[in-house]
Amino acid sequence: MSGVSEGLDVLLAKASMQDHDQVLKYLYGKILQKLKFPDEANQLAEKEGFELSGYKFEATPEQLRRPRIVRVAGIQNQIVEATDAPVASQRDAIHQRVGTMIEAAALAGANIICLQEAWTMPFAFCTRERLPWTEFAETVDGVTTQFLKKLAVKHGIVIVSPILERDDNDEVIWNTAVVISHTGNVIGKTRKNHIPRVGDFNESTYYMESEIGHPVFETAFGRIGINICYGRHHPQNWLMFALNGAEIIFNPSATVDGLSEALWPIEARNAAIANHVFTVAINRVGTEVFPNEFTSGNGKPAHRDFGHFYGSSYITGPDGSRTPSISRVKEGVIIGELDLNLNRQTKDSWGFKMTQRLALYGEKFTQAAKPGYKQQIIRET
Amino acid sequence: MSGVSEGLDVLLAKASMQDHDQVLKYLYGKILQKLKFPDEANQLAEKEGFELSGYKFEATPEQLRRPRIVRVAGIQNQIVEATDAPVASQRDAIHQRVGTMIEAAALAGANIICLQEAWTMPFAFCTRERLPWTEFAETVDGVTTQFLKKLAVKHGIVIVSPILERDDNDEVIWNTAVVISHTGNVIGKTRKNHIPRVGDFNESTYYMESEIGHPVFETAFGRIGINICYGRHHPQNWLMFALNGAEIIFNPSATVDGLSEALWPIEARNAAIANHVFTVAINRVGTEVFPNEFTSGNGKPAHRDFGHFYGSSYITGPDGSRTPSISRVKEGVIIGELDLNLNRQTKDSWGFKMTQRLALYGEKFTQAAKPGYKQQIIRET
Repeated sequence: MSGVSEGLDVLLAKASMQDHDQVLKYLYGKILQKLKFPDEANQLAEKEGFELSGYKFEATPEQLRRPRIVRVAGIQNQIVEATDAPVASQRDAIHQRVGTMIEAAALAGANIICLQEAWTMPFAFCTRERLPWTEFAETVDGVTTQFLKKLAVKHGIVIVSPILERDDNDEVIWNTAVVISHTGNVIGKTRKNHIPRVGDFNESTYYMESEIGHPVFETAFGRIGINICYGRHHPQNWLMFALNGAEIIFNPSATVDGLSEALWPIEARNAAIANHVFTVAINRVGTEVFPNEFTSGNGKPAHRDFGHFYGSSYITGPDGSRTPSISRVKEGVIIGELDLNLNRQTKDSWGFKMTQRLALYGEKFTQAAKPGYKQQIIRET
Repeated sequence: MSGVSEGLDVLLAKASMQDHDQVLKYLYGKILQKLKFPDEANQLAEKEGFELSGYKFEATPEQLRRPRIVRVAGIQNQIVEATDAPVASQRDAIHQRVGTMIEAAALAGANIICLQEAWTMPFAFCTRERLPWTEFAETVDGVTTQFLKKLAVKHGIVIVSPILERDDNDEVIWNTAVVISHTGNVIGKTRKNHIPRVGDFNESTYYMESEIGHPVFETAFGRIGINICYGRHHPQNWLMFALNGAEIIFNPSATVDGLSEALWPIEARNAAIANHVFTVAINRVGTEVFPNEFTSGNGKPAHRDFGHFYGSSYITGPDGSRTPSISRVKEGVIIGELDLNLNRQTKDSWGFKMTQRLALYGEKFTQAAKPGYKQQIIRET
């Protein structure tokens, strides 16, 4: 990836600074202890050429609750084959690659693994073309879920699988995440609540906003929500997952440099803080080149790539502490060992739930959403 | 302030790095151009020993709207006299000191100046004592407003003055911000919507949550909202100010290290991003020592100071770009030259307002706030 910057953490690690630890504390709230993984996990990652990094979020011991330790993983991957290869071949190659990364995450002790948005395919929504891209859409019980079920059972892990979904009934296409239990059963699905119409992200030409709400999935390892991609820009979306009981909210994404990179470290972290939950921000990585030129209607020449997906996946705790980002240029697995007791400890300390005046905002938003809403503006008289 | 760290920006400025500019771009989204001020302004700041820094936020030229340039300032100050000095003397000394800082901000071209939370007094809410602290409370038209009105007229500036308010009717105490027009008239007041009960921040023993909503003030230089201190932890609070038309939202605060510093750079910045507005985060600076010991009920010994107020005021644009922080240890004025056209340009590009599904969240929050709300939880069957 020559020419692509390696990212903030690499630059800071190379810098000569008087007080490196203090800089990291300012940036990340705390210096989280790095996790050590079995040799087998590290060797697999090294052999296959992806990053494997992990950090520990600790809570204070309590008298009446035992620590509730869970290891979560986010996986950021590139596509494997060229985008003009046969659809099944592209998909199966990604399956194999990500299957190896899931293997490494499981060897590193992960209990819940979340993949990136639309992980089985190139992020072709920039093209506005239908075929062959809509052929990547699958039903919730399609080949991808069948592939992952085996891994879930083999390792006793929960897998969150964000796919392009073609539903069983109307054959409508959705942007969906399937949650697969450690038993191999599908617990359920959730869909993207907010859809972008930004630059090359012509996604509203492919699917519409979810109408199935903000489901939270009770897994063997904790209650999880999935806020897909552009939903991270909407604080209300995160809040609803928390109100429904989520302890960990995953944000499987696909976003490129020059667009969102100033926002990326802020939004998922703010959501963890505001809602007393853990968040896992996962972004696709690499550059994808498409067979046909497309434009963004922004005056720039037609092009065949979408820009660089900058990876940089990271995990944040409810106290605002966060991990560094994993690679900006290559594939990787980010692992967090979370003590879920930290959520309630932070909640009891900061008290944002107690002080949030939810009924007031429910009423105000309902008023503000109506046509003819009169803004509360005060003028000099 | 020996022993107190000077903060992230000072450490980074001293570091030897391969690509300093790239690090700043990752951290702050853009490298904003520094403003140059008249000698008179710089000399005043230097003579009086406070920082004066400013940055420019630019927008793309439009055909039908001229640039809407406004300079805003946030002022972070220490108390001047010891906390056992007579109340009037403490207050008047702060008036004089901040009056000088307002002078410098006006010389630097500021149109709207916002002071820190409860700026006329030590932040005594940690003590739980009534007298003499409640004597700092004033009516909206009290001595502080009279003092500021003259400065507003003299410089033709808008001043936002967060005070401890004693209201005219029931003599209830509130945490209030008074908005003074460039004409010297009071445009109106707003009050703190969310009140902390965190550690030494025993503020709910002094005042209650505002019941006057989320007013936005139409000034000669733009529409402003004021989200006082702990209200920054509540994304819904920021959103209501934006829904009421705010273009700039000030966050006058008082917060200390060891508590909120991991959250400080995130929340006001996220609010600017999520709402397509400018935000100005202003924090008190210095350490305040009180006559009598107090405790936080946290097992630590009784103490007479609240910790270090870490300053670090900063400004964020709607595109997520932000200024560095001003000093972590000394007083200062942060100035931003804003082109308010950037708000709508960012709104039209990202479209968060278009995609926010406000009616949905109004309904959901109303449901979730009711006793017996049933969470949307999906379990393996």
